[in-house]
Amino acid sequence: MHKKDSRAADNTKAKPPAQAPPRVRDRIFEAASRLFYEHGIRAVGVDAIVQAADTNKMSFYRNYASKEELVAQYLRAQAAEYFRWWDETVAEYKGQPRRQIEALFDAFAQHARDYCPRGCALANAAVEFGEHDTLVSQIVSEHKAESRRRLRKLAREMQARDPDVLGDALMLLMEGGYSTRVATPGESGPMCAAAAAARALIQAHTAGSSKR
Amino acid sequence: MHKKDSRAADNTKAKPPAQAPPRVRDRIFEAASRLFYEHGIRAVGVDAIVQAADTNKMSFYRNYASKEELVAQYLRAQAAEYFRWWDETVAEYKGQPRRQIEALFDAFAQHARDYCPRGCALANAAVEFGEHDTLVSQIVSEHKAESRRRLRKLAREMQARDPDVLGDALMLLMEGGYSTRVATPGESGPMCAAAAAARALIQAHTAGSSKR
Repeated sequence: MHKKDSRAADNTKAKPPAQAPPRVRDRIFEAASRLFYEHGIRAVGVDAIVQAADTNKMSFYRNYASKEELVAQYLRAQAAEYFRWWDETVAEYKGQPRRQIEALFDAFAQHARDYCPRGCALANAAVEFGEHDTLVSQIVSEHKAESRRRLRKLAREMQARDPDVLGDALMLLMEGGYSTRVATPGESGPMCAAAAAARALIQAHTAGSSKR
Repeated sequence: MHKKDSRAADNTKAKPPAQAPPRVRDRIFEAASRLFYEHGIRAVGVDAIVQAADTNKMSFYRNYASKEELVAQYLRAQAAEYFRWWDETVAEYKGQPRRQIEALFDAFAQHARDYCPRGCALANAAVEFGEHDTLVSQIVSEHKAESRRRLRKLAREMQARDPDVLGDALMLLMEGGYSTRVATPGESGPMCAAAAAARALIQAHTAGSSKR
């Protein structure tokens, strides 16, 4: 993406014309998202958020009724981002469920290593907020239910034996990858075994139909 | 364990002779362990702990230099409890690494369902405390490194192909089981697929040597 011979352009570069600075609500959201992910939701108070967003509490509460509203927006954005990654990753394998799963798991370790040093934001929120029937637990459980539904559906589409068991096993690999990413320092954790394990499980659930 | 004809004994039962009540330090530890696991470590302050332990802050700080000391004791006890469960589960299959892993995974779903509604206390602590090089992160990463070492060792002992990959994949299943236990309400979550998946992975890593 790096543009060659950009020095001339750099020398004459002016302020982008009439580009508005980020709205304060966006600044708050960006700062909170970063802090929540890095340190945990409970560890980050409104004071720390407004400081990082270079604003103040009055402005915060003009934009968000409560920290909970901001947390909900953060978790929904993380969930949407995850499925955007998923959809982009499988896009070129339309109608090829097995290739879709393989592509997901091939991308997974790299994605987790490069972008998810603290694992899955939604799984982490479930750990931090133990109570059932809250907005947080509802967003998390819907997100995980959708992941589970997608993996089981792909397993059915590839005509696996016991597709629900295969789908769930694949989910264990992925969620285990995120969880060990948090608890195991470094970038050579168990997550690196996920893609090979996914292939072995797919093979075990499909081998009879094509090979025997 | 229920004793028949205990009514006579009940009628005459007296206070157990000279049995001391739990020491205040033990009461604090028991109360904190329960609260930390149910609600998370950050969510539970010293006030809540002393209230649940029926004592007061002065007594708390006579027994623990800080909440951190109590947290460390809690995590070490959870880690010891986990490996006690592990050792008991595999005890009858000495010298049979494959049966040991199968026994572990057979027991795992039931263990997670019945005793771990909030997953793994140590993985959860890693989520709550993002900082590296703290006492918490050190206890957690040592615990997970030991789990990983044990699974890889069993995989080597069963002469699996790529034993480190098999060991790590088994770890993903187990950690994924705990993680989804937290984020997926109910007792029929993906963890139930762990035992079948473990068997399929073991088969994939050993099949060639015995069957082909």
